[in-house]
Amino acid sequence: MPDRAAPGSKLTLVIGGARSGKSAHAESLVKACPAPWTYIATAQAYDDEMRERIALHRARRGGGWTTIDAPLDLVGAIGGLPDGRPVLIDCLTLWLSNHMLAERDIEAECRGLADVLSRPRGPWFVVSNEVGQGIVPDNALARRFRDAAGRLNQQVAAVAGTVLLMVAGLPLKVK
Amino acid sequence: MPDRAAPGSKLTLVIGGARSGKSAHAESLVKACPAPWTYIATAQAYDDEMRERIALHRARRGGGWTTIDAPLDLVGAIGGLPDGRPVLIDCLTLWLSNHMLAERDIEAECRGLADVLSRPRGPWFVVSNEVGQGIVPDNALARRFRDAAGRLNQQVAAVAGTVLLMVAGLPLKVK
Amino acid sequence: MPDRAAPGSKLTLVIGGARSGKSAHAESLVKACPAPWTYIATAQAYDDEMRERIALHRARRGGGWTTIDAPLDLVGAIGGLPDGRPVLIDCLTLWLSNHMLAERDIEAECRGLADVLSRPRGPWFVVSNEVGQGIVPDNALARRFRDAAGRLNQQVAAVAGTVLLMVAGLPLKVK
Repeated sequence: MPDRAAPGSKLTLVIGGARSGKSAHAESLVKACPAPWTYIATAQAYDDEMRERIALHRARRGGGWTTIDAPLDLVGAIGGLPDGRPVLIDCLTLWLSNHMLAERDIEAECRGLADVLSRPRGPWFVVSNEVGQGIVPDNALARRFRDAAGRLNQQVAAVAGTVLLMVAGLPLKVK
Repeated sequence: MPDRAAPGSKLTLVIGGARSGKSAHAESLVKACPAPWTYIATAQAYDDEMRERIALHRARRGGGWTTIDAPLDLVGAIGGLPDGRPVLIDCLTLWLSNHMLAERDIEAECRGLADVLSRPRGPWFVVSNEVGQGIVPDNALARRFRDAAGRLNQQVAAVAGTVLLMVAGLPLKVK
Repeated sequence: MPDRAAPGSKLTLVIGGARSGKSAHAESLVKACPAPWTYIATAQAYDDEMRERIALHRARRGGGWTTIDAPLDLVGAIGGLPDGRPVLIDCLTLWLSNHMLAERDIEAECRGLADVLSRPRGPWFVVSNEVGQGIVPDNALARRFRDAAGRLNQQVAAVAGTVLLMVAGLPLKVK
């Protein structure tokens, strides 16, 4: 795991369950920074349910955003950001899921991502899901995903200056 | 989502996972108010497992309670309450589940419920489940339920004066 | 449920989801106490996945630990501890699962365990899983396990002096 960031790190992790208001809250935090705002989307519109979700998120954000699609090369997208820019990265669990479907080396990818996030060059806000508080999943792939997502959340939380847990749309400060 | 309630709202949301002590804690909060106490139950005893749960809850509550069954018409039951009465509404997720099984218009129902809860006429305590912190469910109905429950929790939390997250029987103040 | 412990109880419960950093955090708390340290393991290496997990935990702990295996007789193992010894019990949910597979009387076992934990004879740290924040499981056995785990967590939290909820590797103080 990377060294813990200095308390003053400009990286914020917003973590929570499904429909806990993570994206909306993270958006409001970005919009409290001066524009222009950058949105790095990891979602892939591979079915109707996902297309609908993406459209809903886009409609809620409104204008003033530059959108970058980075379903796999999130490290590259972050590397190309100009200094000082407020950024919303939404979300880590979809990015991880894309990498698992593409059969990449998950451990190496997660280390690389945590490394680039440990040196934020502006107010960066990262959204991620908590997926480990239900019953142990029946199938091995779901268990592997759950383990990898939990480890990734720990790695990113370790280098973040602020960590918020969303509960019913409300932020609970963890760090 | 309704406007946020004034900080002084007398509505309390008690949210938590299965067997996290939500109902017992909410009951203790109601019993700290002067009797008589009203219990609005949304559970339907459609199988033995549910019948047993209802009986256990009833036995624990003990005397001094008026019980109103409102598996579907929760808005009507709340509308009929006398002013100033301490009330326990247990729970929102079962009510939502009943409406989904009855194939009602979930969005309209949830908006209506959040609206009536935004004007509490006494110390009202609402119990609800957190269901979004596990792995993404396999089946589409479970995903729809999870999404609807998360949105409803956000709507009610937004109009509540107090929100408590239960962890192993202990309340964690979120709002 | 046993009477609540005095605030000064030396029992600490570390609860959290899968891969939330529970064991690593609890180990760091034990290692902040003077050696020797005792590790009471409830895991049984019945398949490759579990064997790998056990090996990983063991490698991370490093030297200086005495390990006691107690997949079922956790009460006996705790009873045999010398006074004043820092102890890590990892974890309650596996212990519970072992008892369910062995078809023991779960309620009696949990009562017995909570009772012995209510009188800690040293700085004792107990790790347990939150498993109740996902969607209701399809199968009845998983629901029974979820209910029993939630009740056990409540019983142990009630007698603990400190309860920590792990979120992405970070402790959130609940009690």
